[in-house]
Amino acid sequence: MFNKVLKIAIVGASGAVGEELLRIIEDYKIEAEIFPLASINSLGKTIEFNGKTLDLIVLDEEFFTKNKVDFAFFVAGGEISRQFAKIAVDSGAIVIDNTSYFRMDEGTPLIVPEVNIDEIKNNVTTPRIISNPNCSTIQMVQVIGPLHKQFGIKRIDVSTYQAVSGAGKKGIEELVVQMQDFFNFELENSIKKAFPYQIALNLIPQIDEFNMDNFYTKEELKMVNETNKILKSDIEISATCVRVPIMRSHSEAITMHFANDVALEDVIAVLEKAQNVVVVDDIKNKKYPMPLIATDTDFTYVGRIRHDINHKNIVHCFVVADQLRIGAALNAIRIMQKILDFSTTSGTTKEKK
Amino acid sequence: MFNKVLKIAIVGASGAVGEELLRIIEDYKIEAEIFPLASINSLGKTIEFNGKTLDLIVLDEEFFTKNKVDFAFFVAGGEISRQFAKIAVDSGAIVIDNTSYFRMDEGTPLIVPEVNIDEIKNNVTTPRIISNPNCSTIQMVQVIGPLHKQFGIKRIDVSTYQAVSGAGKKGIEELVVQMQDFFNFELENSIKKAFPYQIALNLIPQIDEFNMDNFYTKEELKMVNETNKILKSDIEISATCVRVPIMRSHSEAITMHFANDVALEDVIAVLEKAQNVVVVDDIKNKKYPMPLIATDTDFTYVGRIRHDINHKNIVHCFVVADQLRIGAALNAIRIMQKILDFSTTSGTTKEKK
Repeated sequence: MFNKVLKIAIVGASGAVGEELLRIIEDYKIEAEIFPLASINSLGKTIEFNGKTLDLIVLDEEFFTKNKVDFAFFVAGGEISRQFAKIAVDSGAIVIDNTSYFRMDEGTPLIVPEVNIDEIKNNVTTPRIISNPNCSTIQMVQVIGPLHKQFGIKRIDVSTYQAVSGAGKKGIEELVVQMQDFFNFELENSIKKAFPYQIALNLIPQIDEFNMDNFYTKEELKMVNETNKILKSDIEISATCVRVPIMRSHSEAITMHFANDVALEDVIAVLEKAQNVVVVDDIKNKKYPMPLIATDTDFTYVGRIRHDINHKNIVHCFVVADQLRIGAALNAIRIMQKILDFSTTSGTTKEKK
Repeated sequence: MFNKVLKIAIVGASGAVGEELLRIIEDYKIEAEIFPLASINSLGKTIEFNGKTLDLIVLDEEFFTKNKVDFAFFVAGGEISRQFAKIAVDSGAIVIDNTSYFRMDEGTPLIVPEVNIDEIKNNVTTPRIISNPNCSTIQMVQVIGPLHKQFGIKRIDVSTYQAVSGAGKKGIEELVVQMQDFFNFELENSIKKAFPYQIALNLIPQIDEFNMDNFYTKEELKMVNETNKILKSDIEISATCVRVPIMRSHSEAITMHFANDVALEDVIAVLEKAQNVVVVDDIKNKKYPMPLIATDTDFTYVGRIRHDINHKNIVHCFVVADQLRIGAALNAIRIMQKILDFSTTSGTTKEKK
């Protein structure tokens, strides 16, 4: 089974999601030995963890066989996952991969713990790759998953308002630098590396590359394909993904077409019971989800819940969640925690036999 | 008919839309005597126009009877329009009202010149009130109007990304001050007057008040009701209106359900012919509409035009236009220009009889 004190490797520990993983492991007081891995570029750099300074370890092919970690979080881009995830599995690790590389692979479970953890409930200790969905998918699935299960959803139209943290640290830095340059009247000449255009005081209706067959972006198609994989559904989904000048927390305006008419109070009742979802929908007192309230929290907020003007089987809502936590690091940690829970429970079950 | 040199009153000349009206009158070299009107609070203040300094005139009940203006632009809020617009009409002026006050009034034409100017083609010189639609409505109607005429639209879902200029000068100032406060670590204590919450690095899914019958905001219902009034249609429309930290230019992610399947090239052909609409849709080269390209221009930009993944009668697009120009001041000026054109033409016609 697992080492008594968990051994956790974080591949990409110095990135935005890597740092968030470390923060959450601290916050949740998960007892573990941490192996912070990074590329050769980070040689000699350190990170802070639980008041200690840890040297970044340069990732190479021998690391996993030498160190026999229990869990390996991959948050360093698809190419690194392609190269090293299977090596980690072969060494006995459970890989929780935050990149898109294995997500649509048929044999790889794509998990939002609140929704489809049951897929990996059996043999949880078997080393393998588990994929973390795309950030914009996770928060949507947390909300629509329970509703689809209860009422059946036929179609979804979603427009996103995605924060710069989706592009990692360089995205956050670029927005801050551009805001400074605005005050120096230098915005036109500002750096544009993380995004194809100025993002301060602008928005960009492109995230990831375009698919030239259907003119959607890959980010938009992730919301379509990953959602249906997670829910084992064939919901008609269309997405428009837009980058906005906000630091953290993605927002989504979602239109859901249900199979039949639904009562609004029934929809709200399901959402109020949904795990890690918080209904914030007191419009009389101007309470609704916003990045301001979602950032740095562990919940997905849903509000602006209303019937369509013309159809009682259509419901609109607005969903906001911290992209770095809910949409990346926390989802990964929650997968690990569920595996740890299940492995303890299954141990108990065995004893009972 | 009209005075030889046009007399134009601008009620609310010191506001964001008022200033934009003055800029456009300058830019378009419209020969006119300008009467810049404002409230008593602006007594003693001046504005710049065509290199001259003009004193702001305090609006009172006698102004219009004394001055016999040809056109009166009302851009000072619904209450001022309620109080003074009819007085202006009684004095012989054509009122072009930018507020929501008369928009849904049955006898008041609601005009987007590119789409329904024909409604006021006859008797253009008759003094009366003509309403300027809401900003988010205007740019949407410029795009969907020609498509509805050609193909018939049955349903629209739209999510907006609306700039702070929609709240006037105080909205723009508030965003700038909050951005400064961000760098001074004072954002939490920043002024919040124009918007109910911090808008810098945040978004707010509420514009205008809520309608407690259907839980939509008034801004959202404007897009529903004004659009159908302008197009004399009964399109099912649902809108989610969101304020984002962008200075000028509103963006809209629009989903259109047509009566029948449409070819994408036919949709694009109609949009390419649409007046004052520019198709920017070269995704291979990352060309699409953004506030960055729309701001300070006189066009409405449409791009990201694509078929729904599942239905050939559903088309998605992304529309951006400068809120202060297209969405307010320029639409009003274009109405005036059309009236001037028609009055010249109808004069010619009369001579021929």
